[in-house]
Amino acid sequence: MTRAPADPSTFHRALAAIRAESPLIHCLTNSVTINHVANTLLALGATPAMVDIRQEAGAFAPVASAVLINIGTPHEEQRDAMREAAAAAHRSGTPWVLDPVAVGALEVRTALAIDLLEFKPAVIRGNASEIVALAGLGDGGRGVDATHAVSDARAAACALALATGAVVAVSGPTDLIVSGDAEYSVTGGDALLTRITGGGCALGAVVAAFCAVEADAVAATVAACSAYAVAAERAGAVALGPGSFVPVMLDELARLEPEDVRGPDLAEHAAADGVRA
Amino acid sequence: MTRAPADPSTFHRALAAIRAESPLIHCLTNSVTINHVANTLLALGATPAMVDIRQEAGAFAPVASAVLINIGTPHEEQRDAMREAAAAAHRSGTPWVLDPVAVGALEVRTALAIDLLEFKPAVIRGNASEIVALAGLGDGGRGVDATHAVSDARAAACALALATGAVVAVSGPTDLIVSGDAEYSVTGGDALLTRITGGGCALGAVVAAFCAVEADAVAATVAACSAYAVAAERAGAVALGPGSFVPVMLDELARLEPEDVRGPDLAEHAAADGVRA
Amino acid sequence: MTRAPADPSTFHRALAAIRAESPLIHCLTNSVTINHVANTLLALGATPAMVDIRQEAGAFAPVASAVLINIGTPHEEQRDAMREAAAAAHRSGTPWVLDPVAVGALEVRTALAIDLLEFKPAVIRGNASEIVALAGLGDGGRGVDATHAVSDARAAACALALATGAVVAVSGPTDLIVSGDAEYSVTGGDALLTRITGGGCALGAVVAAFCAVEADAVAATVAACSAYAVAAERAGAVALGPGSFVPVMLDELARLEPEDVRGPDLAEHAAADGVRA
Repeated sequence: MTRAPADPSTFHRALAAIRAESPLIHCLTNSVTINHVANTLLALGATPAMVDIRQEAGAFAPVASAVLINIGTPHEEQRDAMREAAAAAHRSGTPWVLDPVAVGALEVRTALAIDLLEFKPAVIRGNASEIVALAGLGDGGRGVDATHAVSDARAAACALALATGAVVAVSGPTDLIVSGDAEYSVTGGDALLTRITGGGCALGAVVAAFCAVEADAVAATVAACSAYAVAAERAGAVALGPGSFVPVMLDELARLEPEDVRGPDLAEHAAADGVRA
Repeated sequence: MTRAPADPSTFHRALAAIRAESPLIHCLTNSVTINHVANTLLALGATPAMVDIRQEAGAFAPVASAVLINIGTPHEEQRDAMREAAAAAHRSGTPWVLDPVAVGALEVRTALAIDLLEFKPAVIRGNASEIVALAGLGDGGRGVDATHAVSDARAAACALALATGAVVAVSGPTDLIVSGDAEYSVTGGDALLTRITGGGCALGAVVAAFCAVEADAVAATVAACSAYAVAAERAGAVALGPGSFVPVMLDELARLEPEDVRGPDLAEHAAADGVRA
Repeated sequence: MTRAPADPSTFHRALAAIRAESPLIHCLTNSVTINHVANTLLALGATPAMVDIRQEAGAFAPVASAVLINIGTPHEEQRDAMREAAAAAHRSGTPWVLDPVAVGALEVRTALAIDLLEFKPAVIRGNASEIVALAGLGDGGRGVDATHAVSDARAAACALALATGAVVAVSGPTDLIVSGDAEYSVTGGDALLTRITGGGCALGAVVAAFCAVEADAVAATVAACSAYAVAAERAGAVALGPGSFVPVMLDELARLEPEDVRGPDLAEHAAADGVRA
């Protein structure tokens, strides 16, 4: 069920389009990393708008070019806003990304994530344990921390993609991206992404930004993972630790050129092990 | 309707007073940039206190030397707290600053901002689209992003100043500051302010800090915009991108000397174009 | 009522255990510094999980190795979640740390903090004014800012330790750590900790991380204060201002070696004056 890899120019064009169009990305996201998510989108060239209250969320989603729903700290008012936004995005055809943080491990957000699937996310991005849990094949690790390897989540990712119609991205040292008829891997990044909060959340936002400019959600997700991995590699080569990694990573995202987006691994996808928070 | 520019020593004295008195600034602000707003006030020499729940907000505003109300993510409980704080500030004569984020574009906050005007903010600070929208002369751009140039907002700013009695500050490459009888412009800053989240929010907080020590709200706003612009210029000269701009900007604010606060442009105010988020 | 100082190897072992076990720290904390608290725990080697909604908070506390409850921005839903988490931690024997931000100065959180004491925190960490206020011996300064010196809070700290059974840590240029039968001081840190937001909050989280791996809460608190002070000293020697202090401090926490944790001052505890926010 593997399509041929897209032409690299697809990925280059996607980043160029973000830079040219500065797409508006509507984010409903957790309070822990909301600042970093907004700064990541701005560094990349997109325009974030954090609109997560009742009444406004549903009205705003159709105006945006893509929506990110990250359930990391799903307070009651925000849960209502997420349902509004997902429903409105679905109705209006706005692509939206679900980041099911800590699903499986915690009851309220697990019910929320399952409800939200009804509104057909274009992409679901999570760590291995989250994808396994959302597919109904296991619990969700311990909070935001994956306790499964990416390779162990492959069957779950495929099942989830088939059941929902979404592209499923499993994040780790090698990212796995699957849809009903495609499977890619993207290797890269840096271990410091696991030593900061929001390494995964920010990638979810980057996926949304690429979905805003590239209608093929598989290509958009591969481009996003690749762009993010390249910036992280460069940042990791310069940073002195997790603290300096954050500003350096944002600088590298801003400095990324369209041609830097490598696209998927060309060989068989490498064995993926380890974890990204 | 233009007063003569204040003596430069007014602006120098204002920063010196912030450093000497460390005024307590009560902030009710959005969850996206709340950390950056607090760090900006601390770097400048003021003392932030983020008190935004019912019952506490109304009690705290009269204790503070100034209040900032930024409506970027106005959750239900926070909206009540904002009404409490604005009412209490008005009763006690505590100067307060309204930052009407994304007003016009979104329904709940638009109603809130209009309600809050009843409590007579000393200063309203926004981007061009927000000021146009709050004056009732247009919609609010797309979320936090201005789609009007500063110069296009001049009539709206004057109308809003006359209608509310507030000083109105329109932020952009050249800031425009108007009141019933004064008009100034402040040129400076750096384009990286538009590539980070909170570039505008932090300026709103800086305006509140200057209002805490300088009773003339026009002079306070000019001093705030000038201090912020100078620090941003210096930060922009050193930063490698938007990520490193944030810590460098805070370092520059902390390093600012009273004499660095230049005050308003002395020539006719330059044509303002472009946008600051 | 002073025990002999613990063997230095106790403190070294505690940091080594954090690195080896990566304990899960359940945080219910304020929206201002939640990102910095999470990044501090990650830099130290622990795993933060910010779970602060009703229903989830009570279920998660027994799964965690320690719990942090910081009442800096206690919204209604979070207050319920804090009561759930504290009760569940108490029932399950999970050590938990109370950071009573701005207690005494503000009504809602003062009532909350007093309620939470019923669930027997292992450690209470605050600035001098907060400890004085929680002991019922004074008001709480102005917001998050201490208006008492650490030395002035000694009697209050002892009274609070006796009344609650908790270890009480008073933060300042010299930290004071008291329990029913022990008293230590830890000197160090850097004045820049008072020029950033979250200098105290992050220390509260570090205390929770050490409590997760060291059953003696006095030794855990001393180790935490010592580790934090050493990292801050090193960061202060390198940082150019408050902005650059934040990433550098996180880098230094990540770089800390077990042997760097000095433990308590060995002489009589020095006169503590000044303040840390």
